[in-house]
Amino acid sequence: MLGTILRGPRDVRCEEVPEPKLLKPTDAIIRLSATCICGSDLWPYRGLNETNEPMAMGHEYCGVVEEVGSAVRNVRPGQFVVGSFCLSDNTCPHCRFGFQSSCERREFMTGAQAPLARIPLADGTLVATAEMPSADLIPSLLATSDVLGTGWYAADAARVQPGSTVVVVGDGAVGLMGILSAKQMGAARIIAMSRHKTRQDLALEYGATDIVSERGEEGIATIKDMTKGVGADSVLECVGTKESMAQALACARPGSMIGYVGVPHGVEFDGQELFFSQKGLLGGPAPVRRFLPHLMDLVLERKINPGKVFDLELPLADVAEGYRAMDERRAIKVLLSV
Amino acid sequence: MLGTILRGPRDVRCEEVPEPKLLKPTDAIIRLSATCICGSDLWPYRGLNETNEPMAMGHEYCGVVEEVGSAVRNVRPGQFVVGSFCLSDNTCPHCRFGFQSSCERREFMTGAQAPLARIPLADGTLVATAEMPSADLIPSLLATSDVLGTGWYAADAARVQPGSTVVVVGDGAVGLMGILSAKQMGAARIIAMSRHKTRQDLALEYGATDIVSERGEEGIATIKDMTKGVGADSVLECVGTKESMAQALACARPGSMIGYVGVPHGVEFDGQELFFSQKGLLGGPAPVRRFLPHLMDLVLERKINPGKVFDLELPLADVAEGYRAMDERRAIKVLLSV
Repeated sequence: MLGTILRGPRDVRCEEVPEPKLLKPTDAIIRLSATCICGSDLWPYRGLNETNEPMAMGHEYCGVVEEVGSAVRNVRPGQFVVGSFCLSDNTCPHCRFGFQSSCERREFMTGAQAPLARIPLADGTLVATAEMPSADLIPSLLATSDVLGTGWYAADAARVQPGSTVVVVGDGAVGLMGILSAKQMGAARIIAMSRHKTRQDLALEYGATDIVSERGEEGIATIKDMTKGVGADSVLECVGTKESMAQALACARPGSMIGYVGVPHGVEFDGQELFFSQKGLLGGPAPVRRFLPHLMDLVLERKINPGKVFDLELPLADVAEGYRAMDERRAIKVLLSV
Repeated sequence: MLGTILRGPRDVRCEEVPEPKLLKPTDAIIRLSATCICGSDLWPYRGLNETNEPMAMGHEYCGVVEEVGSAVRNVRPGQFVVGSFCLSDNTCPHCRFGFQSSCERREFMTGAQAPLARIPLADGTLVATAEMPSADLIPSLLATSDVLGTGWYAADAARVQPGSTVVVVGDGAVGLMGILSAKQMGAARIIAMSRHKTRQDLALEYGATDIVSERGEEGIATIKDMTKGVGADSVLECVGTKESMAQALACARPGSMIGYVGVPHGVEFDGQELFFSQKGLLGGPAPVRRFLPHLMDLVLERKINPGKVFDLELPLADVAEGYRAMDERRAIKVLLSV
């Protein structure tokens, strides 16, 4: 079959790879209904992680179960399933605490930018729908696998409450999903920091009440003005750079939480500064599995449309163009048909 | 009158100072029933903060109102009152959000190691009792002003819940109050890290279920063993050094919160480490005012006895000996009679 391999910086290819096989009795094989490219795929693509060996790319997936290992009990061939990018047994103490992304048996999904994929820990990881979903819901169901689940976690970690004033730093796909999530959680005011017209439009559609296009000191001053000098009740940091985290910290009110989901690159916190500013932090790889049944229900009931975040659709064969489009910010997020 | 002045490193004196006067219409003057020395007083005492000018020491207080400014409405002469070490108006947005220690008009209390003290922002800061409390309750009421309120905040920020497993790092007075607080919040297991017999005994009396006397790697391994490799649901960091924070982080389970109330000295957090370990942080100067009415009630109903944390009582004239005793860890916390 064709699969996506990163061979070096900016060298991503759709090439012939072996079909996945069951390796453990707890595995499942699924046939993907669609797959996509994640903002975090751009870190190794840009050469910012070490890539000495070819990497099988892709960790967002939904599709139909083809085959299951002998120990799998919760899903069966023919079912439509979604799973998180973090594979988890959903029974260990970390899973039961709601942090499946720190599962004692955690693995990270790979190789999902392909027509077939092996899903380890299938029983804990996969959530099946009652029936086969309509084709038009596939992009939204795919979004629950990572990008929506991650935005939702950012809002959850930032403790968004009904009536909250929320600032979302980052207008990438995760930031946009953070807006959708804050809206679902009842936030009264959602301030999106964005400088790009198409992203601003989508932010407004997803529930942003205000757009701030300034950054740095100017952006901070604008948000302070908008909140009468107080700052936001909750801040979602959806980028991961030093600058975006500084922005998040400066926009947060004392006693608030910053939910941060962009993998930090070059970010450090000074203990005494954090102490006296009294800003709370909780982040990490999102425990999407905790939220997955609820998010899938919201999609199936057509209450949310996270799939709209895909603004470019390409066949898997053109995956390299998809990476380029996201790298150059010509696309927010690329759906790959398989 | 006599008051306590820090003139330089380890040079603290009880000397003649002018009696405080109302300076603003929002001030009150109180006659202290007792006062005490705080662990945080030791930082400037040890010369770790710059002390170019003589400092009037003392920020924990309770006593009887002598006189109030013309704008004061909530307290009147003759009432017994307690206030936080953070002076706050209790009406600004930060106060209403429960973070009075970040009040827009915040001042830090000074000069309370003396028989009389000026309390700015009296209406927002002071909480009066319905009647004059028994003399034997004075130490416990004094403790609510800072040390108990701070331990309580650590437990609150660490989100201690009924049934939680809690680790308390630090066996100073604040750590001991953290244990008392976790117990009141219904924690099922409270692991106190302490190497000192007298402090271990008090920890057990306040509700600790386990004592860990090891530190560093050994202490971490012990706590991991005790929690079946999982770590604690909540960690209270009550010291503020690099080592104690590292200990706190290592003992916390993924998804847990660390409530940190020791002023950090030399503490830094690496963003990516914090992200992947998925530990949450919330700290800062405790918003004691939020908890004060509840804590005073618990004392007045004799449900808690935080005053037991004072294991040395000295007359104000001997304040220098009090600082020495705490500096050398001969005393947990020193009560000064005035």
